[in-house]
Amino acid sequence: MSSKIKIAILGLGTVGFGVYDIIKNSEYMKSVEIKKILDKDLSKKDIIKGTQLVTNYQDIINDEEIEIIVETMGAGEFSYRCIKEALLAKKSVVTANKEVIALHIAELSKLKAENNVSLLYEASVGGGIPIIYPLFEIVKINEVNEIKGILNGTTNFILTQMFQNDMSFSDSLKLAQEKGFAEADPTADLEGLDMVRKIAILSSIAYKGEIDINSIDHFGITKINDVDLVNIKKMGLVLKLIASSKRIIDKVSLMIEPSLVKTNDVFSTVNEENNIISVNSSINGNLKFSGKGAGRYPTANAIVNDIIAIIEKRKNYTFENINNLKADYLNDMDKYYFRLKENEVIADKYIEKKEKDYLITKEISREEFKKIVEKAEFYAKFMR
Amino acid sequence: MSSKIKIAILGLGTVGFGVYDIIKNSEYMKSVEIKKILDKDLSKKDIIKGTQLVTNYQDIINDEEIEIIVETMGAGEFSYRCIKEALLAKKSVVTANKEVIALHIAELSKLKAENNVSLLYEASVGGGIPIIYPLFEIVKINEVNEIKGILNGTTNFILTQMFQNDMSFSDSLKLAQEKGFAEADPTADLEGLDMVRKIAILSSIAYKGEIDINSIDHFGITKINDVDLVNIKKMGLVLKLIASSKRIIDKVSLMIEPSLVKTNDVFSTVNEENNIISVNSSINGNLKFSGKGAGRYPTANAIVNDIIAIIEKRKNYTFENINNLKADYLNDMDKYYFRLKENEVIADKYIEKKEKDYLITKEISREEFKKIVEKAEFYAKFMR
Repeated sequence: MSSKIKIAILGLGTVGFGVYDIIKNSEYMKSVEIKKILDKDLSKKDIIKGTQLVTNYQDIINDEEIEIIVETMGAGEFSYRCIKEALLAKKSVVTANKEVIALHIAELSKLKAENNVSLLYEASVGGGIPIIYPLFEIVKINEVNEIKGILNGTTNFILTQMFQNDMSFSDSLKLAQEKGFAEADPTADLEGLDMVRKIAILSSIAYKGEIDINSIDHFGITKINDVDLVNIKKMGLVLKLIASSKRIIDKVSLMIEPSLVKTNDVFSTVNEENNIISVNSSINGNLKFSGKGAGRYPTANAIVNDIIAIIEKRKNYTFENINNLKADYLNDMDKYYFRLKENEVIADKYIEKKEKDYLITKEISREEFKKIVEKAEFYAKFMR
Repeated sequence: MSSKIKIAILGLGTVGFGVYDIIKNSEYMKSVEIKKILDKDLSKKDIIKGTQLVTNYQDIINDEEIEIIVETMGAGEFSYRCIKEALLAKKSVVTANKEVIALHIAELSKLKAENNVSLLYEASVGGGIPIIYPLFEIVKINEVNEIKGILNGTTNFILTQMFQNDMSFSDSLKLAQEKGFAEADPTADLEGLDMVRKIAILSSIAYKGEIDINSIDHFGITKINDVDLVNIKKMGLVLKLIASSKRIIDKVSLMIEPSLVKTNDVFSTVNEENNIISVNSSINGNLKFSGKGAGRYPTANAIVNDIIAIIEKRKNYTFENINNLKADYLNDMDKYYFRLKENEVIADKYIEKKEKDYLITKEISREEFKKIVEKAEFYAKFMR
């Protein structure tokens, strides 16, 4: 039927194919036609019968019939340019691209408003977990003061193997790669960069201002070893890589840190590739959302729901950029586990407990922490 | 300004006043005017300066300026009639009334569609937790096969005091009443009726068919005693009152039961007046939502968000009533804890472990369970 709503998908990778597959097989999506798909690999033609595969983005941008562009390439600069061009051409955009949204949320939100189209990115954080839309809802009448989350499926999968199945870090990473949870180059995941982008997006929405992602401290899990694993288990705790974001008036503090979690804490129950996001707000109190944070279908599901929302004219994120936010540290005092580099020592006054191969600090300020962490091979913060 | 959107609130109780308060104090709600409030107690005039207090619903129904009616009386038949009249008068309705929605979801959904208005009820389940809208989103492209939840703040508060603070059932209930979490007559909460209504609403949406709430088995926590408390603690488990709902093709099974939860299960971490809802679906896998399930402001917050959604023409629940559902039991085999009534015995073949004052069954069918539970004073199911 010519009355179908025509869309295009950019990139037929894991998520892009998931979107294609759901649309093709869902009764609810029968009013939608995937008219064109952008992919460099023309051999993929065989798996998308009836849809035109193109290699030049202009074939899509110049197609006036196409109303919605689904960006699932996950590229940096090129994805950004494609999204921008789409909005300027008055096409709505759905994307899972956390890098682009984290860096350009204010500019792209302005552009979509000026062109009177939609820009939705539910899939950019938490895979299949609905969090972006609920957060835009919450901030309408609440002040958000804290967000905490396990936002990366790869690292959580690895830590689950280590802490539940007694596997080493390298074996866990290998298994994650075999299962498709970790990329060939897993650096962005393991060092916390992926979570930097995600907590920046959530914080930008929550605090109504752009966050400079370069100001976010992050320490990943690449340096964890078997000694740490044994030490942490002995303490009866579990290690999780946790993103945290706090706000006091116009001061915000964002970081990604290995964190020691008690076994009666809900964060300790979030395992494998699952994610959790906890949001504290003034009227609503604490809300938590959890589910699969990675994988083809949960992510594609979030994208398809965004496509539906555009067609039904329901969701519309109104990004307010009204706060001048400085990433800084609040006056929190925290306790830390440290395994120091060889021949390094720290002053006794900071130490609560010292063992052969690790130490636990008293509650110290972030400034004190900053000095000590330079001498450390690995650390983890005791979560409150 | 005469361009303000005019609404009316029915009932200025705990939640109704919360809605009034948020609207009056929120920048985002400045385009909304609460024109009239229905309440029998005219002395409340003093606390709602500038808003007209009326005692006759016809004063609201006949007011053509009023576009949205917020029903927070929590009554049965009278609330139902008010909602119906409002829809027929082409006014949109927002309600927290789980009883009315559970009983009349199909009829009222049809009525609102015919009159081309909105009917939103996010606050009817889970207080401030967004679950109704996400569930309507999920079912568009997913098949839901299971929902589980701690859906009642009162009973969860009481069980938390018993299991974490070593309080007796009666002291816990008293504390809940003092804190305003339990009503003067707490029967509907304690015996699981409140949860019956909530799981019926979620199941109706999830499985796209009306659920006969009389077909839902429920066993509350009024019969728990100190012996049970000691026994369950000795097993290293925690007791939670849990609603469960499963579907296999056109067969559904719904029940509310005291359930024994392991301490590494996320349900054991949901304490005090908090709720959790877990939804399993075909594409998205398992999603969990948790937060404050009771209390003036979280509930009022959900209602205010629904008002905003109507004004911004965003949310619109499309309730599909396409399945002929029979509440029945699936072939699940489960283990149970039983404390029998005096002089009652059950056949040895069902028993895995027998102690002086309780017994634990082998895995038994629901039919076998049904026969045994008649002889029991209290029971709890071992949660998988």
